[in-house]
Amino acid sequence: MPASDTTKDMLGRQRLTPVHEALSLLTSSLQNIQRTSERICLTEALDRITAQDILSPEDLPAQARSTMDGFAVRAADTFGASQSSPCYLQISGEVLMGENPPGKIEQGHCFRISTGGLLPTGSDGVVMLEHTIPVDSKMIELVKSVGAGTNLINRGEDISTGSVALGAGHRIRPQDLGLLAGLGIGALEVYCRVKVGILSTGDEIVHWSENPPAGKIRDINAITLTGLARRAGAIVTDYGIVSDREEDFFPTMLKAIKENDLVLFSGGSSVGMRDLGEKIIGRLGNPGILVHGVTLKPGKPIIIGLHNGIPLFGLPGHPVSAMVCFELFVEPAIELLSGHKKNQTLPQPTIQAVLERNINSAAGRLDLIRVRLQEINGVLMAQPVLGKSGSISTLSRAHGYFFIDESSQGLEKNSEVRVHLLQ
Amino acid sequence: MPASDTTKDMLGRQRLTPVHEALSLLTSSLQNIQRTSERICLTEALDRITAQDILSPEDLPAQARSTMDGFAVRAADTFGASQSSPCYLQISGEVLMGENPPGKIEQGHCFRISTGGLLPTGSDGVVMLEHTIPVDSKMIELVKSVGAGTNLINRGEDISTGSVALGAGHRIRPQDLGLLAGLGIGALEVYCRVKVGILSTGDEIVHWSENPPAGKIRDINAITLTGLARRAGAIVTDYGIVSDREEDFFPTMLKAIKENDLVLFSGGSSVGMRDLGEKIIGRLGNPGILVHGVTLKPGKPIIIGLHNGIPLFGLPGHPVSAMVCFELFVEPAIELLSGHKKNQTLPQPTIQAVLERNINSAAGRLDLIRVRLQEINGVLMAQPVLGKSGSISTLSRAHGYFFIDESSQGLEKNSEVRVHLLQ
Repeated sequence: MPASDTTKDMLGRQRLTPVHEALSLLTSSLQNIQRTSERICLTEALDRITAQDILSPEDLPAQARSTMDGFAVRAADTFGASQSSPCYLQISGEVLMGENPPGKIEQGHCFRISTGGLLPTGSDGVVMLEHTIPVDSKMIELVKSVGAGTNLINRGEDISTGSVALGAGHRIRPQDLGLLAGLGIGALEVYCRVKVGILSTGDEIVHWSENPPAGKIRDINAITLTGLARRAGAIVTDYGIVSDREEDFFPTMLKAIKENDLVLFSGGSSVGMRDLGEKIIGRLGNPGILVHGVTLKPGKPIIIGLHNGIPLFGLPGHPVSAMVCFELFVEPAIELLSGHKKNQTLPQPTIQAVLERNINSAAGRLDLIRVRLQEINGVLMAQPVLGKSGSISTLSRAHGYFFIDESSQGLEKNSEVRVHLLQ
Repeated sequence: MPASDTTKDMLGRQRLTPVHEALSLLTSSLQNIQRTSERICLTEALDRITAQDILSPEDLPAQARSTMDGFAVRAADTFGASQSSPCYLQISGEVLMGENPPGKIEQGHCFRISTGGLLPTGSDGVVMLEHTIPVDSKMIELVKSVGAGTNLINRGEDISTGSVALGAGHRIRPQDLGLLAGLGIGALEVYCRVKVGILSTGDEIVHWSENPPAGKIRDINAITLTGLARRAGAIVTDYGIVSDREEDFFPTMLKAIKENDLVLFSGGSSVGMRDLGEKIIGRLGNPGILVHGVTLKPGKPIIIGLHNGIPLFGLPGHPVSAMVCFELFVEPAIELLSGHKKNQTLPQPTIQAVLERNINSAAGRLDLIRVRLQEINGVLMAQPVLGKSGSISTLSRAHGYFFIDESSQGLEKNSEVRVHLLQ
């Protein structure tokens, strides 16, 4: 007699794996992946992952520069300057932007200089414009001394030759492009983008561009999962819809595995289809199935497998479940394959909100609760978005989600929750 | 005598505008922008902005469906069923996935059904597999009654014909692609992407691919700002480096304005260059300058202008300042021009961390403090990334930033801060 039992899956067959255990099985099996890299131009490098440490080819700045608008001086000339005993310096030149200084600074002299201007020989400090009093067009008065090294940046102080500008495994952000441009690094070695193959399964599924006959529905998952994988930086190939027959499914899986670094199929809400997904990953072997069923709602029936180092995912057919499984398992796998060294201690940014009503949860299960966020009387409220299994409108209604962990049996109204935004 | 005074800019000329006032001037001047739209295929719609409400062309589901694996029944047949008085139903058929049910359900009968299966005529409820006891291959026992409507989704319950699937001004996420695919919407009207023109200015600047002679530096800002604008969804044209002479700068600005929806220039750390940016925006007019200088660190010398509905930005030359000004002013302007109706009450997701040391701030000024995040003894610490003006390595070292607002004179060590991630 089948019974609801958290140590069995929905068919009463096997123990469900806790989410963290499934993730750690998955990630540990992908530790020794071989990655290929390619050399690309800096202008194409946004969001790519560095395949090696990038070292600075030069000292920056190449010469000492002013960091303020003012006057380049010999610091020793200003020693002892005060309100009662000001010091006077003669303006004997100006450092023009982008040009060498017009000579050397002699004792008792100074040059006008702008931020970024090259420090003239003889000078070792810059006095800010605001701290000077013009006497006439050729002389300034100082009422405060300037130490050597004030308001300037020394040669190599920013980055010195041979030091690491960006480490290996770094995802290149706009500011990193700027850093590399500043160092004149016009090409770099990055990991090749992760290739993801997507199959939709189920005899009840037709392509979304078709008009489904009675009993059939349009494929929602392929386009959603494609969008999610692209956002994760992958190159996606869509292998279309395969039937619930092993002789169709297996060869398409083989082709997808040959052409990609990660393969996922979704759908098959029928019992037979769930069995087929398991059977096919088992038949592929090396080693085959890692996890079948996790303590997660929604997303319980996920299958995670591995074949010759290629992770395989059988996602539930229900679009919300498929999306949740993507976020919790597939996205981290793409990240790992990409070579991105994620800062593991860095949590995801969240929004704090107040739960609008009580939510029950079974202990021993991770619940992912999708919410709309709405400000009510100045308080940001999280309103759970509930929908019947298979409802596609719930897909789009949520602003984000929060978790209720395995040890909790639910959360009370007005609890504080940390919402992950679905952007 | 020039003096540091928060109501004057660095040249002692004009009042600095508070950041929120500058933003509201900018956004209110962009309220009546005319946008163009284009019709695109669903497969190209990720991250685009809907130009009109998208209505559902049909009822979903088109027919009532089961939301569970189990048996489709006539609810009335199960009334009164209990442990002491179970009810027995004859299994007279099976609803196959993707097919019409094999007939009508007669009194005392039921059909096997899977999640997603079409509800047969005559039945008005589904009993879960787990709540039945198989008597033999042709009969089940029920010890609990099922109400009409249980475990099924009615026609149009998910989305009904003519209801709004996605509102106008919505940025299309992967799950929204799924929703539209489910409704068979293969093409849609979206706003044209915002076109951004970028100029770099300053006689001391050379293109990053060149080897700078003494006194010159490579252009860092164009490639950083291009990356930021692309991430904000814009199409970017780089107009290269223009000299500090009005006869070079003005015609290039005119050309960029003609070809784009927003134009920004950066650089010119010299006093002359700052004056020139102001002069050129003033000369363009209609209306010309909106803001010159804000109470912000870094980023104080920003110029914000408008010419015939096209926002113009003069960003500081210092890369960190240019980036901060982009995030605080240019990105919101691109958002506004894009037609995206941002949920204004939704805050940005942040990471809570603990400040590692005291930070001073001048009252009356918004300070943006860039930090590295590091977990120390289980606590996420925010370590301020400090760097001399013009240091490019600080560009890349920060994980994120937090604000110290105008009313505060600083924050003490161990204060809790909310960090915006620079991803």
